Amino acid sequence: MTGEIKVGKVMKMQALITQNNLGREFQRCCLGIERESLRVQEDATLALTKVPSSIGPRASHPYLLTDFSESQPEFVTPPSCSCLDRTFDWLAALHDVYIQAMNADEYLWPFSMPCLLPDEADIPIIDVPEQEEIAYREYLANHYGKKLQMISGIHFNFSFSEQFVTRLFEEQTEYSELISFKNALYLKLTRNFLRYHWLITYVYGASPVADESFYTSKKHGQTPPDQYVRSLRNSSYGYNNFSDVRVPLTSVADYSTVIQQLVKDKKISEEREYYGNARLKGHGKYTKDLMERGIKYVEFRSIDVNPFDQFGLSRQQAEFFRLFFMMLVWLDEDASEADIERGMTMNEQVASEHPFAETAFQAEGLHLLEKMIEVAEFVEANDKAQAEIAFVQSALMDPTKTYAAQIVHEIEKSSYIEFGQLLAQKYKQLSTAEPYRLRGFDDLEMSTQLLMSDAIERGIRVEFIDRQDQLLKLSVADHIEYVRNGNMTRLDSTISHFLMSNKTATKRILARAGFKVPGGAEYRSLTEAMANYPRFADKPTVIKPKSTNYGVGISIFKQGMSESSYKEALEIALAEDETVLIEDYIAGTEYRFLVIGGVCRAVLLRQPANVIGDGKRTVAELIAAKNQDPLRGEEHRAPLTKIECGQIERMVLKEQGLTFESIPGKDQRVLLRANTNISTGGDSIDVTDDVDPSYKRIAEAMTRTIDVQITGIDLIIPDIKQPSTHMKPGYTLIEMNYNPAMNMHAYVYKGKGRRVTQDVLNLLFPELPKRRN
Amino acid sequence: MTGEIKVGKVMKMQALITQNNLGREFQRCCLGIERESLRVQEDATLALTKVPSSIGPRASHPYLLTDFSESQPEFVTPPSCSCLDRTFDWLAALHDVYIQAMNADEYLWPFSMPCLLPDEADIPIIDVPEQEEIAYREYLANHYGKKLQMISGIHFNFSFSEQFVTRLFEEQTEYSELISFKNALYLKLTRNFLRYHWLITYVYGASPVADESFYTSKKHGQTPPDQYVRSLRNSSYGYNNFSDVRVPLTSVADYSTVIQQLVKDKKISEEREYYGNARLKGHGKYTKDLMERGIKYVEFRSIDVNPFDQFGLSRQQAEFFRLFFMMLVWLDEDASEADIERGMTMNEQVASEHPFAETAFQAEGLHLLEKMIEVAEFVEANDKAQAEIAFVQSALMDPTKTYAAQIVHEIEKSSYIEFGQLLAQKYKQLSTAEPYRLRGFDDLEMSTQLLMSDAIERGIRVEFIDRQDQLLKLSVADHIEYVRNGNMTRLDSTISHFLMSNKTATKRILARAGFKVPGGAEYRSLTEAMANYPRFADKPTVIKPKSTNYGVGISIFKQGMSESSYKEALEIALAEDETVLIEDYIAGTEYRFLVIGGVCRAVLLRQPANVIGDGKRTVAELIAAKNQDPLRGEEHRAPLTKIECGQIERMVLKEQGLTFESIPGKDQRVLLRANTNISTGGDSIDVTDDVDPSYKRIAEAMTRTIDVQITGIDLIIPDIKQPSTHMKPGYTLIEMNYNPAMNMHAYVYKGKGRRVTQDVLNLLFPELPKRRN
Repeated sequence: MTGEIKVGKVMKMQALITQNNLGREFQRCCLGIERESLRVQEDATLALTKVPSSIGPRASHPYLLTDFSESQPEFVTPPSCSCLDRTFDWLAALHDVYIQAMNADEYLWPFSMPCLLPDEADIPIIDVPEQEEIAYREYLANHYGKKLQMISGIHFNFSFSEQFVTRLFEEQTEYSELISFKNALYLKLTRNFLRYHWLITYVYGASPVADESFYTSKKHGQTPPDQYVRSLRNSSYGYNNFSDVRVPLTSVADYSTVIQQLVKDKKISEEREYYGNARLKGHGKYTKDLMERGIKYVEFRSIDVNPFDQFGLSRQQAEFFRLFFMMLVWLDEDASEADIERGMTMNEQVASEHPFAETAFQAEGLHLLEKMIEVAEFVEANDKAQAEIAFVQSALMDPTKTYAAQIVHEIEKSSYIEFGQLLAQKYKQLSTAEPYRLRGFDDLEMSTQLLMSDAIERGIRVEFIDRQDQLLKLSVADHIEYVRNGNMTRLDSTISHFLMSNKTATKRILARAGFKVPGGAEYRSLTEAMANYPRFADKPTVIKPKSTNYGVGISIFKQGMSESSYKEALEIALAEDETVLIEDYIAGTEYRFLVIGGVCRAVLLRQPANVIGDGKRTVAELIAAKNQDPLRGEEHRAPLTKIECGQIERMVLKEQGLTFESIPGKDQRVLLRANTNISTGGDSIDVTDDVDPSYKRIAEAMTRTIDVQITGIDLIIPDIKQPSTHMKPGYTLIEMNYNPAMNMHAYVYKGKGRRVTQDVLNLLFPELPKRRN
Repeated sequence: MTGEIKVGKVMKMQALITQNNLGREFQRCCLGIERESLRVQEDATLALTKVPSSIGPRASHPYLLTDFSESQPEFVTPPSCSCLDRTFDWLAALHDVYIQAMNADEYLWPFSMPCLLPDEADIPIIDVPEQEEIAYREYLANHYGKKLQMISGIHFNFSFSEQFVTRLFEEQTEYSELISFKNALYLKLTRNFLRYHWLITYVYGASPVADESFYTSKKHGQTPPDQYVRSLRNSSYGYNNFSDVRVPLTSVADYSTVIQQLVKDKKISEEREYYGNARLKGHGKYTKDLMERGIKYVEFRSIDVNPFDQFGLSRQQAEFFRLFFMMLVWLDEDASEADIERGMTMNEQVASEHPFAETAFQAEGLHLLEKMIEVAEFVEANDKAQAEIAFVQSALMDPTKTYAAQIVHEIEKSSYIEFGQLLAQKYKQLSTAEPYRLRGFDDLEMSTQLLMSDAIERGIRVEFIDRQDQLLKLSVADHIEYVRNGNMTRLDSTISHFLMSNKTATKRILARAGFKVPGGAEYRSLTEAMANYPRFADKPTVIKPKSTNYGVGISIFKQGMSESSYKEALEIALAEDETVLIEDYIAGTEYRFLVIGGVCRAVLLRQPANVIGDGKRTVAELIAAKNQDPLRGEEHRAPLTKIECGQIERMVLKEQGLTFESIPGKDQRVLLRANTNISTGGDSIDVTDDVDPSYKRIAEAMTRTIDVQITGIDLIIPDIKQPSTHMKPGYTLIEMNYNPAMNMHAYVYKGKGRRVTQDVLNLLFPELPKRRN
C-alpha cells in the first residue's frame, strides 16, 4: 500500500508551499504534549505514596497517566489543531487538577533529572491490576535499572493539518497516493529532526547535573561526569536503548520491519521499548499499522523538562518548536541514514558540552535560524515566535543564555536540590492558590470549570462543543454525554425546563400535587393589574416579572403598599417581562435546596453582604479585611464576591445610622446590602446537615412531580429545625431553577463545601466508581 | 355526617352576601355544559353510521360521549370556574372536532326534538364492548321506547366557587359544619329552581313541534298535540320518569334514600334512570356519596336545545342562567315540597301553552326578573347579562319574542324539517370552513391548536398550564404529559434543545458522526470576521447570526461578495446575535424533514410566493385569485399566508421586468418574493412520498446522533430522486430545529397533508390505539 521513498530524492516543499500560497495551512499544525514528572516530598525525596485516589482509573485515563513508577505522573494533553494556546490551557488544567489532588506535603519535581532517590529496591513500580503492565516494568527495572526510569522529559506529538497535507498532495506530481506522500513528508521531517535536533539540546537542554543518588543505577554504575553538561538526558547518561538497537528511517516499511525484528530478536521486549529521539506513529498501537494507513504523527522525545516553567515547557518555547518542525520540511535537503547518524552524534556531543562553552556547531545553528526566519516571514509568524527565534539566536552567540547555563547559575547559588525545592513549592502555590479556578479554562463559568475539573480528575474525556456556550462533550469509552452550564444534561427533559422557567406553571403543578405555594395572580397589562390593587393593598406582597431568572425586577412589600408604589413596582416588573406575577410575601428565610438524581445534595443559606464589628475597626476596614478572603473575587469569577463600598452600601449603612467610617461594637452585625445575592458580596452558608430532613424529602418529592433530575429549589422556611408535616407544612415554595449555580455550594463562606458537580458526573456516568461530594 | 335541613327555615343569603361584600365571589360560579344532539343525513333522516372512528374510546372519553344511540353524540365541557367564555371556548372546540370527524354527508340536528326517525327497531343502540351499557339501553328502549331517547337537551352543571361557599360558611352562624351548610345552600338552589323553572321554559322553550315519525314511540302511542306548544320536551310528551317516580328534596338523606329505594323497588333500573329536572351530584357516581362528602354541584336538565345557536345554547343565554341560579339563592324564600309540586305543574303548563299566547304566570315572571336585576346590580353584572334580562323582560310581555314563537315563525315559512336542515348545514359550514382553526382556542399557535384538536378527538384530557405560553397538560387516566408548542415534551432532553439551538454545536456533532455539513467559520467580532474576508470573497457564502431561529438576519451570496457587502451582511447578522456564522452556500433546494420518534413523518418543500400566469389576468389579479384559497390567511393565523402587494413584492417583480399590472403569459411562473417563508406568502408542497427513501433514513439517523424525538431538519438536496450514498452524499445539513412548526405539514398548498401532531400523541401515549397521520 505505502509507496517507498527513494532516499536522496528531496521533496521540494518550500516551492510547493510558496507557489500555492499555503502559509496559513502550513502553520496550522496539530500538537499534543506529554510531560513527565515525579511526586516528591517537602525534603525533595521521592514520594512513596500511591497516586492520589481521586484520580480516575490509570489504565484508561486520557490525561493523567502514571508512567514507570507510582510516583511518576505523566500529563498528556489532547491533540489540538487550532492554536498553541489550547495546548497550554490543557497543560495548566492538568497540572492544577493533579496538584490539587496530591497530598498536602507533596510537590512536582521541576527537573528532568530525578529528585533524591531511595535505593533501587524502594522505588515503587506502578500499582495497576494489569499483570502485563507490571511485568513490563519489572523487565525495564531489571534491564536498565529503576533509577534511569525516573528521568522525566517532554514529548511533542506533532502533525501537519490534514488540509495542508491534502492540498500539498493535490499540488505535487511525484506521488500518486496520499498515504505515500504523507509518509514521505513525515519521514523527511523525522530525518531532518534527527539531523538537526542538537540545536534544541543546545538551547533548551536543561539537565546539567543530577543528584548523587541517581548514579547508582544498574546502567550507570559509573561515576558522574566531572563537569556540568548541557543535557545529561541527551548524553550517554540518559535513558536510551542499548547500542545494538538501531532503526532506519529510509521508509515506513524499513522502520516497522526493523522494530518488529528487534522484538523478535529479543533486543527489545516490546515495540514500545524502542526509545528513539523521534518515533513514527500510526493510527494503531503497533508499527505494522504504519504500513496500512501511514504515519499519523511524529513523536519527538529529546526535549528536557524546562524548570523555569511551571508546566515544564514555555508557551514561547512551543512556538519555536513548531517553527523548527516547519523549517525541517521547508529545507531543500533530506538527511540520509549517514546524516542521521551524524546528527545523533552531534546531539550527544552538544549534550555533553559545558553549559558556558560555545557549541562546536554555532555556524550550522545560525544557518538553521536563518531558514526559520525565512519560514517565519512567509507564514507571518506571531510576535512570540519571532521573539523566541531572536532569543535562540542570541543564545547561540552567548552560551550563558542557554537553559543549562541559567540552571547552573541558579544552583551555584544554592544547590540542585534546593533550587528544585524552591521551584516545586512556587509551582504548587500557583496551582492551588485559587482552587475554584481551573486555569486554562477560567473564561468558563465557574460551574462549568468545576465540572470540567472533576471530569478530568476522574478520567472522563472533555471536549468543547461550544466553549462560549459552556457546552461540553464528556465521554468515557463510547459513552457520550453533553452538558451545558454544568447542570443541563440528557437526563432532564425540555418540557421540565419550560415548566420551571414558567413560575406560574411550576406553582400550578406543584400546588395541584399538594405542595405549599404562595397565593398569587398573573397579569399581562398594567391596567389589569392596577384594577386589582385593592386585593393586595394591605397584604405582604411580592411583585415580580414572570419568567426572568436572576432576581431582576422584583419588589417586596412586607406591609402592603400605596397605589403609587404598587404601580411603580408593576412598571419595573413589566419592563423585564410581558407578564407580571403578584404573590403573597412569605415571611421567613429563603434556602436553596439542590437536588440531583432525586437526592438533596446541598442546602444553602445566603445572607446579605455584612461585616461583624470588633469595637476597633471602621466599617471600611472590616470590609477590607473580609475582602482578603481568597474565595472573594470579582463578581462571577470567584465563589464569593468582594463587598463594595458603593452608593448602595452607603445607603444601607445610612438606614442603620452608620457610615463607612463608623466603628461598630464588638460582635455587632452590620449589613451592607438588603439582597442576599452572592454576586453583591453576600455570604453563603452550607446548612445541609442542619436542616430537618423533612425539608429535603419535600424538595426531592417536588423534583419527582416536575420530573427533573437537576434543579435548585428555593423554599422559604421560618425554622429549619422544626419538622414540616402534612398538617403543618413548614415551607413555602418560591421557585425551581432549571439552571442552578453549582459552584455556589462547592466553596462556601461557612460550613462544608459540597462538590455537587461530582453528583452530576455520578448520575451521567453510573459505570464509573461513585464519588462523594 | 350531613346536617339535616328543617324545612321552612329559610337561609337568608342575600343579607350574608351583601353584608360581607361577596359580590365578586358570588358571581364566580363554576359551570359545565352537556349538549346532546343527533347525527343526521342530508335528507334529515337519522344517520345510521357508527360514531366516527377517529373519536377516542367512548367508555372513557372525557368530552365527546355517545348517549343512548350510536347516532347521538353528547358534548361535555370540562367544568370551568373562571368565566363563561372558557365554557363556550370548549363548546366551540368540541363541536368543531366532532363535526370535522363526521362523514362528509352528515350533520348535527339543531333541535331538541328528533329528525326524521326510522322505525324503532332501526334506531341503533350504542355499540360498545361493555355489556352492561348495552343492557341498560335495551332496558330503556323497552321501558320508554327508543324514540323518546332521541330527544336532545342541554344540561347545566352548576356550582358556586369553593371560596364563596367557604366565606359564606365562615360568616353564617346556623351551621357548624361546612358540608351541612353547603348541602343546605344547594338544596335551596334546587328547590327554588324547580319552583320557578317555568320561566326558562317560557322564554327558551324551543321544542314547539316534532316530526310525525316521532309519535310512534311506545310511550306516545298517542296522537300529536293539536297545536304548537312552547316545549314538547318539558311537557308530558317529553322524556320523563313514570309518575310513580317522585324524589323529595327535603334533605340530601331523603333524596338519596328515596332514589335507592326506587332502584330496590325496580321502579327505576339504576340510579341514573332518575330524570328529575334537577339532580344533586356528589363526588362519586352514586347518591350515597352525597351523604358522605355532600353536594358538589347541581345538574339542571330542563333546558331545550336552542336551534338559533350553533352550540345549542347562546353565550348570552348562559349569562341569564347564571344570574337566574344566583337569584334563586338570593331570594328570601325556599320552596317546600308542595311548592315544588306546584312549580313542576306550572312548568308543564307553560310548556304546553301556545307559543304566541301570553303565559299564565307573567306577573310572577316579572317579579323574578326584578329580583334578578337586584342581583345583577349588586354584582355589577356585565352588559351581556343585562341585555339578556332585558330580552327576557320583553319576551314576557311579548310572546312572539320567545324562542318557541320564533321557531314557529321560521317553520311556518318552510317546515320543521327544512328549517332544521338549513340550520344544520349552516352550523356544519361554520365548523368546517377553516379546519386548521380550533374555534375557542384560536388565540393559540396553530401547532398547539392542532395538537389540542387531535387530543380532544382521541379522548385525551387537555388542560392549560399556561395558555399564553402554549403549555398544555394532557392526560389519560393517571398518565400525565406536558407539551409546549405542540412539539416540546418529556421525551426530549434539555441538552438536545441546546445542541440544536446552537447551530455550530449541531453541525460539529453531526460532522463528527460522519454527516455532511457545510464548511464554515464562527466569529465574535466584526474585526475578526473582516480579517477573514479573503477566505470568502470568491466563494458562494451564507452569513447568518448563530442562534436565532426564524431566518432573520441571513444574507446569501451565491457568487462571492464585495468587501462592503460582506461587511454589511456581518453587521446585519451581528445585530441579531453576538456571534456570526459564515458558511459555504450550498446550491440546491432546501427541504424540511420532520422526524418524530425516530421516523421521518413528513418532507416539505417551501417555494417563494408566486403566481402562474394565464395570459389574461394581471399579476395583481392572479394574486387576488390565489389569495381566495381558504388556507390563506393572516401571517401565523392560517396554514398559508396571503400574498401581499407591497414594496418588496414590487421590487422582486421589477427584477423580473414586471409590475403588478403586467399580464404574464400562460403558465409563466412569476415570483413575488425571494425567500421561501410561508409567512410571506410562500407555497408549501408535501413531497414525503416523492423523496428517495435514503434521505429519510439520513434524517432519522441524525436524530439518533443528537438524541432527539421531535425535530425539523433542513437539508439542501439538489435532486430528491437521486439516492444519497455513503460515497456520494446527496444532501447537506442546514440546521435542526428544536421547535419545528407542526401545522406547516398538516395543511399544504400541494400534496398530501400530514397530521404530524397525531404522531406526537402516538409517541406520548403509547397505550392509546395508534393513529396514522
